[in-house]
Amino acid sequence: MLRVNPNRLRTRLTSLAAIATGPDGRISRLALTDEDKMARDQLVKWMQELSLDVRVDDIGNIYGRRAGHQTNGAAVLIGSHIDTVPNGGMFDGAMGVMAGLEIIEVLNNANMTTTHPIEIVAFTNEEGARFEPVMMGSGAVTGALDTAWVETRPARDTGATFTQELERIGYKGDARNRISSPQIHAYLEYHVEQGPVLERERAQIGVVEGVVGLSWLNVIIDGEANHAGTTPMDGRRDALVAAGRMISAARDLALERGDGVVITIGRITVSPNVPNAVPSRVEFSVDIRHQRAQFISRTTALLEEQFRMIASCERTTVEIKEIKSVEPAVFDSTVIQAIIESAKALEVPYREIVSGAAHDAQYVNAIAPAGMIFVPSRAGMSHSPDEWTDWEDVAAGADILLGAVVRLAG
Amino acid sequence: MLRVNPNRLRTRLTSLAAIATGPDGRISRLALTDEDKMARDQLVKWMQELSLDVRVDDIGNIYGRRAGHQTNGAAVLIGSHIDTVPNGGMFDGAMGVMAGLEIIEVLNNANMTTTHPIEIVAFTNEEGARFEPVMMGSGAVTGALDTAWVETRPARDTGATFTQELERIGYKGDARNRISSPQIHAYLEYHVEQGPVLERERAQIGVVEGVVGLSWLNVIIDGEANHAGTTPMDGRRDALVAAGRMISAARDLALERGDGVVITIGRITVSPNVPNAVPSRVEFSVDIRHQRAQFISRTTALLEEQFRMIASCERTTVEIKEIKSVEPAVFDSTVIQAIIESAKALEVPYREIVSGAAHDAQYVNAIAPAGMIFVPSRAGMSHSPDEWTDWEDVAAGADILLGAVVRLAG
Repeated sequence: MLRVNPNRLRTRLTSLAAIATGPDGRISRLALTDEDKMARDQLVKWMQELSLDVRVDDIGNIYGRRAGHQTNGAAVLIGSHIDTVPNGGMFDGAMGVMAGLEIIEVLNNANMTTTHPIEIVAFTNEEGARFEPVMMGSGAVTGALDTAWVETRPARDTGATFTQELERIGYKGDARNRISSPQIHAYLEYHVEQGPVLERERAQIGVVEGVVGLSWLNVIIDGEANHAGTTPMDGRRDALVAAGRMISAARDLALERGDGVVITIGRITVSPNVPNAVPSRVEFSVDIRHQRAQFISRTTALLEEQFRMIASCERTTVEIKEIKSVEPAVFDSTVIQAIIESAKALEVPYREIVSGAAHDAQYVNAIAPAGMIFVPSRAGMSHSPDEWTDWEDVAAGADILLGAVVRLAG
Repeated sequence: MLRVNPNRLRTRLTSLAAIATGPDGRISRLALTDEDKMARDQLVKWMQELSLDVRVDDIGNIYGRRAGHQTNGAAVLIGSHIDTVPNGGMFDGAMGVMAGLEIIEVLNNANMTTTHPIEIVAFTNEEGARFEPVMMGSGAVTGALDTAWVETRPARDTGATFTQELERIGYKGDARNRISSPQIHAYLEYHVEQGPVLERERAQIGVVEGVVGLSWLNVIIDGEANHAGTTPMDGRRDALVAAGRMISAARDLALERGDGVVITIGRITVSPNVPNAVPSRVEFSVDIRHQRAQFISRTTALLEEQFRMIASCERTTVEIKEIKSVEPAVFDSTVIQAIIESAKALEVPYREIVSGAAHDAQYVNAIAPAGMIFVPSRAGMSHSPDEWTDWEDVAAGADILLGAVVRLAG
């Protein structure tokens, strides 16, 4: 059975990390920065060394193609991203692309030609840290995001547009180089879990069944600003007391349901936000996620009911608006089956898992059969210099990816 | 019985308001601005027209003295302030000083000379809106604030020091002009309530027994930042959930005690404060007020106990620090008695009340017998263009002030 070379994979991954590692050991390789350009140049160089046919599309997505017996056939794609958040980790995204290179090298060395071509793809700006929103590269080529809109998105730091920055770093390619639905036989993404489940359950591999859907609400509570000293407790309409009760109620609701739904209230703004005035207005975000759309809508309805009850009880008003909604993604059963067979053949312990984070795979999944493989993240940490995955897990996941690619590419 | 002329009082009060009223009807007359200077010039002009002996001290406090039979005797002071918060109201502070002018005019017209001299004082920067802290003028002359420190306080807008701005507007006077403890026979301050109690209880006049003490706490909760999608509910250490429970518990504690203690959580900051991350750190202010110091310390102890319990239950840590503490002030019984007798003689309905807001009177009270008279604030509003007191209440309070002044000045 073919196996990856763990040392080669580790060397490529650490070399890529070194490109954007500051003196403090932190990695910042935001999309379309000079650091991103250097990493892209290195990726292209490695692709060329492996005799891949390299091309770049109009969104800056980089592809490296290894021919199959079916020269013009649909390809098995191995994809992820090489941009990071500020002070990010070395595994998030990069591991999937580097594992793709390693698999190509294994196949090259074995002189093995698959039926379907194999393509590595590094999608532009998955993180959304410098240009909003997240997953721009995969979103544009799969039609989920409008290309003209993507091209004019401003950089958070300089205000330059996406296209200006893409041209500046020399990665504005041709729209004809995009992947398209009929040309994808299957898409595989190998990624760190970025959550604590695999570690907690001692599973080395996560076979990802899908990605949770989400609903983002914006909640505005209006009370009345009053003097902290002169207003009796029973005469107040305190927007922050109402918010405090809602925040607590939201958490309790998620825990009580016990169906895996997660509710996060992460952002809050208070007016006038001074120590000696009763808050008149509070605005906060609600993030609700679950793998089934009806669970999200049911939870949202229950939450709204509780919020309205609390607001009324506190003599405040509440306005609740859904500002974003993403349907859950369910990955392709053929791709999932190929991953499971590969894990079984290698006798690696795995479990099915649902991704709580968004990934390029979910956009691709809308136009072609897709699937993902997870490996454990220590303490569930990600988007942080503390992000870590043991090297033996990195190798085990890459071996399973290799097996799945070979099964799917034939 | 002597009575004020309601129309004259109203005319002075609206004329003073007109000096700093913007096109939107809002009054902004922050300490030591050009608007403050214009209002001071007008006040000095009125004092001179009433034949008062005008002097200014080194903090810019303006005094207007009417001689008594005891030429060098201790004076009955009628004090308040003429600065405002941004977009403030026309009654807060100014009403007390304008009522003083009206009382002088009544006494002048009646050709009445009191035993003790009568002085009007307008204290500098009561609001603390442009220079921190509040009540600088009264704080400095009563020794509660260090003069050298006050002189170097920076303006929030320009950074200029207090003394620079005082000189700029031409109101840097002589330290020898300050009032001092032996020269104050009694101090009376006539002010709007800035709270809803008098209106709610249909009392036209509040005889102020004292000013609440306060304790300001700073609370810091540390949890753990995590991804909103990948972190199960039971694996979170959410600092904002802990804060939400504390905010709700603080309010419940105050309501349950039912002893008049008020607790306000007015300022909160959250990190990282993004919709898709579990908050790792929350910092918030707590403002606790009561007229008895031991009630404040008891409430603080109970609150700390509850906060620690909630923090531990949420697997977060909490750090609680007292950052400011002011002892309650209890006004002088002789002054209070003079006010009550005056109200009774005029057959005006009154009730005893404790001030939840700070006033210059509480600094003066530490060095001389002091007392205050309140009139109702519509809906308890203050520090707002909506601040309102009915003109008949303004006149009724001024009549009672006149009666109390005559009683105390002999």
